Amino acid sequence: MKRVATRIVERKRQGNRCVVVVSAMGDTTDELIDLTKQIVSGTPPIREMDMLLSTGEQVSSALLSMAISELGEKTVAYTGWQAGIRTESLHGKARITSIEPKRLLKALSEEQIVIIAGFQGLTEDGEITTLGRGGSDTTAVAIASAIKADICEIYTDVDGIYSTDPRIVKVARKLKEISYDEMLELANLGAAVLHPRAVECAKHNKVNLVVRSSFTQNEGTQVKEEAFMEQGVVVSGIAYDKNVARISILGVPERPGQLATVFSALANEKIDVDIIVQSGVVQGQAEFSFSLSSADLDRAVAVIESTHSIVGFRELTSENNLVKVSIVGAGMVSTPGVAAKMFTTISNLGISINMVSTSEIKTSCVIDGSRLNEVIQALHTAYGLDADSTVFVGGKAERR
Amino acid sequence: MKRVATRIVERKRQGNRCVVVVSAMGDTTDELIDLTKQIVSGTPPIREMDMLLSTGEQVSSALLSMAISELGEKTVAYTGWQAGIRTESLHGKARITSIEPKRLLKALSEEQIVIIAGFQGLTEDGEITTLGRGGSDTTAVAIASAIKADICEIYTDVDGIYSTDPRIVKVARKLKEISYDEMLELANLGAAVLHPRAVECAKHNKVNLVVRSSFTQNEGTQVKEEAFMEQGVVVSGIAYDKNVARISILGVPERPGQLATVFSALANEKIDVDIIVQSGVVQGQAEFSFSLSSADLDRAVAVIESTHSIVGFRELTSENNLVKVSIVGAGMVSTPGVAAKMFTTISNLGISINMVSTSEIKTSCVIDGSRLNEVIQALHTAYGLDADSTVFVGGKAERR
Repeated sequence: MKRVATRIVERKRQGNRCVVVVSAMGDTTDELIDLTKQIVSGTPPIREMDMLLSTGEQVSSALLSMAISELGEKTVAYTGWQAGIRTESLHGKARITSIEPKRLLKALSEEQIVIIAGFQGLTEDGEITTLGRGGSDTTAVAIASAIKADICEIYTDVDGIYSTDPRIVKVARKLKEISYDEMLELANLGAAVLHPRAVECAKHNKVNLVVRSSFTQNEGTQVKEEAFMEQGVVVSGIAYDKNVARISILGVPERPGQLATVFSALANEKIDVDIIVQSGVVQGQAEFSFSLSSADLDRAVAVIESTHSIVGFRELTSENNLVKVSIVGAGMVSTPGVAAKMFTTISNLGISINMVSTSEIKTSCVIDGSRLNEVIQALHTAYGLDADSTVFVGGKAERR
Repeated sequence: MKRVATRIVERKRQGNRCVVVVSAMGDTTDELIDLTKQIVSGTPPIREMDMLLSTGEQVSSALLSMAISELGEKTVAYTGWQAGIRTESLHGKARITSIEPKRLLKALSEEQIVIIAGFQGLTEDGEITTLGRGGSDTTAVAIASAIKADICEIYTDVDGIYSTDPRIVKVARKLKEISYDEMLELANLGAAVLHPRAVECAKHNKVNLVVRSSFTQNEGTQVKEEAFMEQGVVVSGIAYDKNVARISILGVPERPGQLATVFSALANEKIDVDIIVQSGVVQGQAEFSFSLSSADLDRAVAVIESTHSIVGFRELTSENNLVKVSIVGAGMVSTPGVAAKMFTTISNLGISINMVSTSEIKTSCVIDGSRLNEVIQALHTAYGLDADSTVFVGGKAERR
């Protein structure tokens, strides 16, 4: 807390007006959740859960404000609702609908350092909500947009965005810059440094993001509209997602609405499906596969079996312990052969590709999880991303 | 928490609409204060302190609401500001200025059990305040008044108001009833069960209070406008205040404004003075004494010494380790000889009375602290308060 305060005061004394969004301290949230477990046998009422959990950030905002005044700067702490953060009425994972920045702007004009409890807001009905995963980063981005801040720095435990996970590839490089779209793909693909929600919010509102470390003075990575592009940059980063499963539905009689039946049933159970592949129809029977999170596999199998009487498929198979590896780069769309190089690199290792998915700026392959590290190493080298190569590179790091 | 929830649900199922005001759990407040000590060297900023401490009650209100839903009743928890509690803008010890009960009344009409975080409110400027000592009881009384509740039960760790401290007098009795005025005197005189602020608020708004134990089903003590008076009731209770000090200023040259100079200087330093005694003037010199809290003694002596150049007194003496013993009873004003019996009882023990103060319903004596228990025992018997005596009695108990 004192170290963070010192850091903020430095930024202030460099001539910046500062608004700081804080999360709860260390284990606070877990401790509060433990308290509910002593009281409630099942799922606690979600409205009360929000009221409970929002105190974690309120505590850290008040303490940080105290630590800053101790250093002699003017400061004021606000809860989410005091900071004017309004959200939809969806407890536990509300989205920010608007920010009324009057109070913040007034405090800033008085040269106060403003501390805001992140992860929370208020509904139109005066109920406290929390924002769910990525909520504190998203609060920061939304506030930055509302007060038209020059920059929104996200302090985390890594010092920037890397070309890939440095735990797997020793020669991974830290990026100077990355575009919103690339960051969004990386974030969606499993890079945990920035939540996709925060990146989307930044992209939508054109907020200049910087990801940097709380522990060092290193420069960090800028995330912005158009990242600086050196000649020859095609793939900026390699991301991966462990815990991928696949379900295949075989022998599905061909008739309209079959896919709709299956995926509506999954959606009703809030099971997210990632890549979907449908094969051609042979003798009136289709076959389709999709990937999903390992955690949802058992539930998904049960849901699909429950549709058997309607869909009339012949067989259901599933695999677990898969991973999805993705290459991401804004230059891919205009460069032929980028995906082909990925497939070749993977096959050269003697590894089969189970599923493929592509977009303008990424290509993803689902493969056997046991070969993940080899594949990432090989792709990192194949796309010239190793730190001793001469092209500018981009990519990701996971929260350590 | 579960036991309290069960108790509330019982009350609800007996056909009552219930609003519950909660304090912070156990050591929460102390733990939060400890956190500030790790961060701030001196006094923490009081606005941020309120923001921090108010989370304690917010946590317990959310948890209690969860515990109640677990028992199958509809319930909703509100922070102070959600409950419509508005206060003056005095952080750390704000007084309630108004309550907007619309939200509470709506929830009650929907048969919800309403839980309110006590000890807190919101200023006109949208700042979170805490109410200071006695704040949770006062919240309960103010809410009871705003929603016109039939009764306001204060659950505490003793089962009612006693004729005196049962730790000192084994035969102390629990009262069935006591009047606001008597309770107020007892509360002001050191009985910690109810804070004088809560009693005053109840008296002013004619709220029927009941003090009862969280741990037993015993009936408790009713505090109300006119307590039931049995024949012969004169003294209802005996209270005491330890930690009393006395300062005497001797040889004060007689001229106008001398007392004002001394007591204004003390008031400027927020030192509360209790009993003030001025002796007659001898040879143009006056002498006066006053009692105050032991904790303030050193500061008070320093303040008075600083007035020496103006007041020109001859000598300053002080004593510590005194106590104030008080008898309280609505019947005193109409019964001659009540105070005299107190003085006689004390002198019969061979104890000198240092100072005396009287009001319509109480008489207080400041005496040497080492003889406190003897004096209380003797007075309790002298006024017929012992549990085996036949008259109806009143009095106090201290929080154990």
